[in-house]
Amino acid sequence: MKLHGNTEDLDFAVIDSRRSERTGYPEVVYCAGKTLEQSERIITRMREQGIPVLGTKADPVLAQRIARDFPEAEYDVLARTLSVGSVCSPAERQGLIAVVAAGTSDLGIAREALRTAEFFGSKVTLISDVGVAGIHRLFNRLADIRKAQVIIAAAGMEGALAGVLAGLVTAPVIALPTSVGYGASFGGLSALLGMLNSCAPGISVVNIDNGFGAGYQANLINKLASKQT
Amino acid sequence: MKLHGNTEDLDFAVIDSRRSERTGYPEVVYCAGKTLEQSERIITRMREQGIPVLGTKADPVLAQRIARDFPEAEYDVLARTLSVGSVCSPAERQGLIAVVAAGTSDLGIAREALRTAEFFGSKVTLISDVGVAGIHRLFNRLADIRKAQVIIAAAGMEGALAGVLAGLVTAPVIALPTSVGYGASFGGLSALLGMLNSCAPGISVVNIDNGFGAGYQANLINKLASKQT
Amino acid sequence: MKLHGNTEDLDFAVIDSRRSERTGYPEVVYCAGKTLEQSERIITRMREQGIPVLGTKADPVLAQRIARDFPEAEYDVLARTLSVGSVCSPAERQGLIAVVAAGTSDLGIAREALRTAEFFGSKVTLISDVGVAGIHRLFNRLADIRKAQVIIAAAGMEGALAGVLAGLVTAPVIALPTSVGYGASFGGLSALLGMLNSCAPGISVVNIDNGFGAGYQANLINKLASKQT
Amino acid sequence: MKLHGNTEDLDFAVIDSRRSERTGYPEVVYCAGKTLEQSERIITRMREQGIPVLGTKADPVLAQRIARDFPEAEYDVLARTLSVGSVCSPAERQGLIAVVAAGTSDLGIAREALRTAEFFGSKVTLISDVGVAGIHRLFNRLADIRKAQVIIAAAGMEGALAGVLAGLVTAPVIALPTSVGYGASFGGLSALLGMLNSCAPGISVVNIDNGFGAGYQANLINKLASKQT
Amino acid sequence: MKLHGNTEDLDFAVIDSRRSERTGYPEVVYCAGKTLEQSERIITRMREQGIPVLGTKADPVLAQRIARDFPEAEYDVLARTLSVGSVCSPAERQGLIAVVAAGTSDLGIAREALRTAEFFGSKVTLISDVGVAGIHRLFNRLADIRKAQVIIAAAGMEGALAGVLAGLVTAPVIALPTSVGYGASFGGLSALLGMLNSCAPGISVVNIDNGFGAGYQANLINKLASKQT
Amino acid sequence: MKLHGNTEDLDFAVIDSRRSERTGYPEVVYCAGKTLEQSERIITRMREQGIPVLGTKADPVLAQRIARDFPEAEYDVLARTLSVGSVCSPAERQGLIAVVAAGTSDLGIAREALRTAEFFGSKVTLISDVGVAGIHRLFNRLADIRKAQVIIAAAGMEGALAGVLAGLVTAPVIALPTSVGYGASFGGLSALLGMLNSCAPGISVVNIDNGFGAGYQANLINKLASKQT
Amino acid sequence: MKLHGNTEDLDFAVIDSRRSERTGYPEVVYCAGKTLEQSERIITRMREQGIPVLGTKADPVLAQRIARDFPEAEYDVLARTLSVGSVCSPAERQGLIAVVAAGTSDLGIAREALRTAEFFGSKVTLISDVGVAGIHRLFNRLADIRKAQVIIAAAGMEGALAGVLAGLVTAPVIALPTSVGYGASFGGLSALLGMLNSCAPGISVVNIDNGFGAGYQANLINKLASKQT
Amino acid sequence: MKLHGNTEDLDFAVIDSRRSERTGYPEVVYCAGKTLEQSERIITRMREQGIPVLGTKADPVLAQRIARDFPEAEYDVLARTLSVGSVCSPAERQGLIAVVAAGTSDLGIAREALRTAEFFGSKVTLISDVGVAGIHRLFNRLADIRKAQVIIAAAGMEGALAGVLAGLVTAPVIALPTSVGYGASFGGLSALLGMLNSCAPGISVVNIDNGFGAGYQANLINKLASKQT
Repeated sequence: MKLHGNTEDLDFAVIDSRRSERTGYPEVVYCAGKTLEQSERIITRMREQGIPVLGTKADPVLAQRIARDFPEAEYDVLARTLSVGSVCSPAERQGLIAVVAAGTSDLGIAREALRTAEFFGSKVTLISDVGVAGIHRLFNRLADIRKAQVIIAAAGMEGALAGVLAGLVTAPVIALPTSVGYGASFGGLSALLGMLNSCAPGISVVNIDNGFGAGYQANLINKLASKQT
Repeated sequence: MKLHGNTEDLDFAVIDSRRSERTGYPEVVYCAGKTLEQSERIITRMREQGIPVLGTKADPVLAQRIARDFPEAEYDVLARTLSVGSVCSPAERQGLIAVVAAGTSDLGIAREALRTAEFFGSKVTLISDVGVAGIHRLFNRLADIRKAQVIIAAAGMEGALAGVLAGLVTAPVIALPTSVGYGASFGGLSALLGMLNSCAPGISVVNIDNGFGAGYQANLINKLASKQT
Repeated sequence: MKLHGNTEDLDFAVIDSRRSERTGYPEVVYCAGKTLEQSERIITRMREQGIPVLGTKADPVLAQRIARDFPEAEYDVLARTLSVGSVCSPAERQGLIAVVAAGTSDLGIAREALRTAEFFGSKVTLISDVGVAGIHRLFNRLADIRKAQVIIAAAGMEGALAGVLAGLVTAPVIALPTSVGYGASFGGLSALLGMLNSCAPGISVVNIDNGFGAGYQANLINKLASKQT
Repeated sequence: MKLHGNTEDLDFAVIDSRRSERTGYPEVVYCAGKTLEQSERIITRMREQGIPVLGTKADPVLAQRIARDFPEAEYDVLARTLSVGSVCSPAERQGLIAVVAAGTSDLGIAREALRTAEFFGSKVTLISDVGVAGIHRLFNRLADIRKAQVIIAAAGMEGALAGVLAGLVTAPVIALPTSVGYGASFGGLSALLGMLNSCAPGISVVNIDNGFGAGYQANLINKLASKQT
Repeated sequence: MKLHGNTEDLDFAVIDSRRSERTGYPEVVYCAGKTLEQSERIITRMREQGIPVLGTKADPVLAQRIARDFPEAEYDVLARTLSVGSVCSPAERQGLIAVVAAGTSDLGIAREALRTAEFFGSKVTLISDVGVAGIHRLFNRLADIRKAQVIIAAAGMEGALAGVLAGLVTAPVIALPTSVGYGASFGGLSALLGMLNSCAPGISVVNIDNGFGAGYQANLINKLASKQT
Repeated sequence: MKLHGNTEDLDFAVIDSRRSERTGYPEVVYCAGKTLEQSERIITRMREQGIPVLGTKADPVLAQRIARDFPEAEYDVLARTLSVGSVCSPAERQGLIAVVAAGTSDLGIAREALRTAEFFGSKVTLISDVGVAGIHRLFNRLADIRKAQVIIAAAGMEGALAGVLAGLVTAPVIALPTSVGYGASFGGLSALLGMLNSCAPGISVVNIDNGFGAGYQANLINKLASKQT
Repeated sequence: MKLHGNTEDLDFAVIDSRRSERTGYPEVVYCAGKTLEQSERIITRMREQGIPVLGTKADPVLAQRIARDFPEAEYDVLARTLSVGSVCSPAERQGLIAVVAAGTSDLGIAREALRTAEFFGSKVTLISDVGVAGIHRLFNRLADIRKAQVIIAAAGMEGALAGVLAGLVTAPVIALPTSVGYGASFGGLSALLGMLNSCAPGISVVNIDNGFGAGYQANLINKLASKQT
Repeated sequence: MKLHGNTEDLDFAVIDSRRSERTGYPEVVYCAGKTLEQSERIITRMREQGIPVLGTKADPVLAQRIARDFPEAEYDVLARTLSVGSVCSPAERQGLIAVVAAGTSDLGIAREALRTAEFFGSKVTLISDVGVAGIHRLFNRLADIRKAQVIIAAAGMEGALAGVLAGLVTAPVIALPTSVGYGASFGGLSALLGMLNSCAPGISVVNIDNGFGAGYQANLINKLASKQT
């Protein structure tokens, strides 16, 4: 039998090596839809070109393979983010983004947002388990949240955290719906719809479980706010 | 041409005259799916049997026709409820139900709940325009809300009011999603899903825009709480 | 490789230790979205503060780990509920809640409701396999059902049990849709919609498979009805 | 300006004049998607070929136009059916179909089923306002329903009537969901899903508001049962 | 740890032993939502009462366990039906039902319909792989199909087989949508909608993958047609 | 009051005047989402640049206004297409496209496809009322259909026409779902899903009621087939 | 007949007069769900308290009534926005927001965003009719777009404009899906989903047709970027 | 226990051996819904009749079993296509189809399209990783893409590639949505809707992940364009 599709010389990916010039930041590797081999080869090529790499939805097995070649790699097991290098050093990080997570179950996705924003050069603080069912917990942390330039609100189930927060702060809120929940949460749809329909203004929304997208957008805004200081 | 379906002698409806014995309360007339003639004849027959009548989703035209025959009729133009007689007099009303409405646009449905609960014998208080986008407005009214045995939370858009309230009170909350909103609110679906997925316990939900159902259920619970006092 | 997210000192959860004061009952641990370690540490902390613990959607493996430290733990394999301590002793339980399950397949979720209501201090009776396809079975048990202050109706498929029951009793019905079924039941959606659209009043609905929510709400109502006796 | 599409000589429709030979019954005219002119011309042509005509979802204006040319036409204002001629005379009608309607609002669609079955030669009885919210009303009519060879169960909202009936009779039940309801009934979807997921066997379902389809199918079955007697 | 929910003495199921009197046929065991133990005990009890048993969606492991106690058991591995005893002997089967399957992938569900109809006493013929993409294959078998009193049309994907068949025969068609397909077939939804919206009359539809329901309904109709011969 | 948004000098539209160079054909004006004034001004500007204009979903009132300035305009009242000029003269039209419409109600959308294909230079033939419920009508016209290079299959309801056709011809089929139907046809969704899931290959699908899209795509293919002859 | 719900003294709305202190900007009046009287009274009260008013989804009739009392009112007939006063004068507006609209039909919603951002103090530029179907039109305007601090991308149909833009700029993109389209656009759902699933980072999304929300969020970000200059 | 459904002599499949005469091409085996044994037997029978075989969605295990009997078999592990023989030799392939894939994750489905088109006799070129988020990558390959007679655009997530491409080329575009994505991509629904609603004409769409359907349709069109050269 003749086999196709598993050969070494596949020219499957086009590294967008000039993305930094065009949009200010390098490309990111979404690992979920790729084979381990594909992700590994893309990361290796990017490193060969000196590009700092952030991989999202990365499997622990991929992390271990990458760590053999790149000992400086860092992996967050809850966030499932893998980084090799960074756009700037921790000392150079600017501004402040508050990542606010409604419950313990939302932590993984919230941390994906946090790791992304850090990778691209923002200072970040994480405030967790402050869902609206016990709203005093949120008020207890409000002073900390108000220090941020941008706020990410990660929540599943009914996703009400984003709307409540937006009514209490002056910073823009990036709403990050998670697939936490069951039954009529329909894989995060209920949180997504809740956030899109919030009666409070000052909210914009990213895809369900898209911690990366929330962190990236928050970083863009945080940098705008910080660049002239 | 021979015409069918519009004759006087249609035996289209079966008055459930012994419903009071079985469930404690008389039948209610849902006017939306019926012709004016059908609603009018059902109401007339029920009055002839001495049954107090509550009509929901009632057109103003129907109200005027009924008022000609039954001057004691009452009509709420926002709630679209029409009543002729009542299960008990205002003085006999018991307990307390708080109907809490998120915004001005939710008032019609909230008042349908209020009128229903009053008709069946509950005391009711209405607290409006306390949506979560300005949560201090809700806190300002919390002492009043906490006096109630049962709470109805009417909200459209993301429907977050129910969950926030349930975390602040000891009374059961009946969540009443409304079709207020547009775009991805999908006719009240987003409020309904938000309420069903609330992370706070102590909530149960009725159909979108079903003010009657919320008022009826709240009355049942309120009476349970009041009957032994 | 530097690893994040699995360290011991994560401050991931905020115990809502004053929830009892605010809402009358302690917080409950939803175990499904948490790692075993997270659930275990939350339960341990709550016990250290003397809070009785109810865990829902709990894995048998978690139950075994908790049982090593807390031999008084109880686990219901069908309900997947885990309890350590209780809000009141069995002797102190009040009133009566009837948990009515349409079929054998609905038993697990129905028992989650039952265990929740018992944990919070209600007397409970379970009536099973009385779905509407053989409605005489329901009539045979009606006298027992009518003794309850509140009724939980657990059903999958078309969820018709709730509406039929509500037309036969004076107590409020908490409708509990389950994901039992296949094809166009769409994971419980058909039962949920059926219950929301019931033509009988006196019904309010909780999320699909949310036995905990039904049991909690029924307990609130049952306590209201019992407190003055 | 040159106009197209409104000329007299459009050859838009192909009368299926030999349908009777192939399927036993003549074609029926679905009037809703056609212009008045198109419906009128199709009906006229069929009459010229001696084919008895049944028009469904027919506008009263169409009925009046047809009545000018065909005084023997019959129109049912609730059912919106228009007939000119019939497959057999009233005296020749066979067997018995029971059309059972849950509520007054379902009457129009139920009567569309009834008129269709009569047109094709079945005896029919209509039993209305026997929804499951007051199930004793259904039991009161059960003896009459059991006389039928086939049963049509028309209901909106949660559509539970079909399943309850199927558990009580030996005849096959054709479930006819209607768009009666609001909110989460989603134009009849909830009744449709409820009927498809019924736990009682002996049910098959037609499209929402498809009274014609239910009546046609019931007639086919009724004739099978009657032909050898 | 105290364990609940796995004891021997659970009174979880109510055998509907007089169902035959009420609806003409005994109850059937839907095995998918039950534990092996539950299914086994229900089947054993029914056999002890002399009731013939049909189990649907039955696991091969359950079949093997049942076969140890009841050597007369029969199991169809494609249909996943398990029978012990039968309502009538093969020789007593009446009439004729044609089960028509669009493709090889629809065979399992089609055979579930076939086994059900046989169990309840109908003669059955299976005609497979005659989907509309190669419509001459259907015409080749039309003479055989036309011999049947009732036709079951099993198809996934777009489900067009039912509508095409109904235009070619005089017998009623029971449409059986299957979950065969991928992408926008959404687990059988596309076949279900196609069958519900068929422009040909003479079709009624059962739930997706509900071979049992189709076979049961076809048997009811077939018996009606056969009883007087 | 100061008014905005209704001034003459709005620069609202950018005529894509070089579209012909880039894609081979001029831009088309989708009139449904525009005010009469906007459509009128766009059409006028395009004519001033000598571009032949096709307007789709055009209101009769717009047609009359355009006809005042451009007497050569043509309007199809069923198709709701408005054309001023044409890409080529009728004599220059090439190849052959068969537009096959399932029923009379699908004619408007089918003719939108036909007018579009003619406008861009294809010969077209229309074959109507050949839905699969009476499949012999389709076979009667098969010889004509087979003469075409490309086939457009327009159908609502279950949309089965496309799949049946594709199994009978060698030409590619462009499936054109229409919103004809009611109930569970959900505005054309059922036809769309049916066509996407067809088990016959050789089909690709356009948006519901997108007669323009079908005609445009068919013309592209027809031209490919015709250009070298 | 006694009438309720239309009295003058209804205490229906709670002006959130300290919202500016809490979130930096005054409340906005969503007019769509309110009666003319309700909107009028809320606007009048806010003006009495010296609060600048922005009304969205405002009817022209409301605009005329408001203009009688407040001649300084401004109304945008495409945007359906009504303003009386402003948060800052045109001269004080800061930064730059580019509102990019895919097509002429998206202009109304795009202008709602523009008017909102202006009202709250941002400089704004509108770039219209640059949808991705003729991508050179977008490139022609890219230099202008790149001058903005924040970009709003308004598009219906497939909503691809947001993703294409985000790959070409360094500014954050607020994606604004519109309900422009038909058939499977499902009232803007397809644009919403497209924008949420964009493979380009740097995008966050607001509700369908929520021009106000997009303008408000863009203003917040623009101000962050401008405040330190 | 008597076993059914696993016997050797099942006559489960009807080889459509004259499909080539009717539609120009032999039947293809969709392996996903069949047991290994069923697929194997169908392939063997087709080879015995000299028919070239293409199997889609084929498991590697099936490939190995087929390779034992037919050493000339070819298997593409990414595309999951299995072929034994071919409609024409590589040298005889005609025309040119460009298969354009948005990202690495879309490669498997894109290659299914490529293998299908090759099997049926088209020349094919694959252009990958040119998604719209970095649109210059697409422009870099435009010259190559423009050489093709037909273009297949494979993309997941928002599916914008199809619309952007169609605005840049003269060839017809077959849009192939993939299930690549997560959250609100709903298994490919967002890409499917995006492609159906594209504002660019010249696109038609196949089912989600239906690489075979896209390749087949593209081959039909490519052959039309090539046959007269």
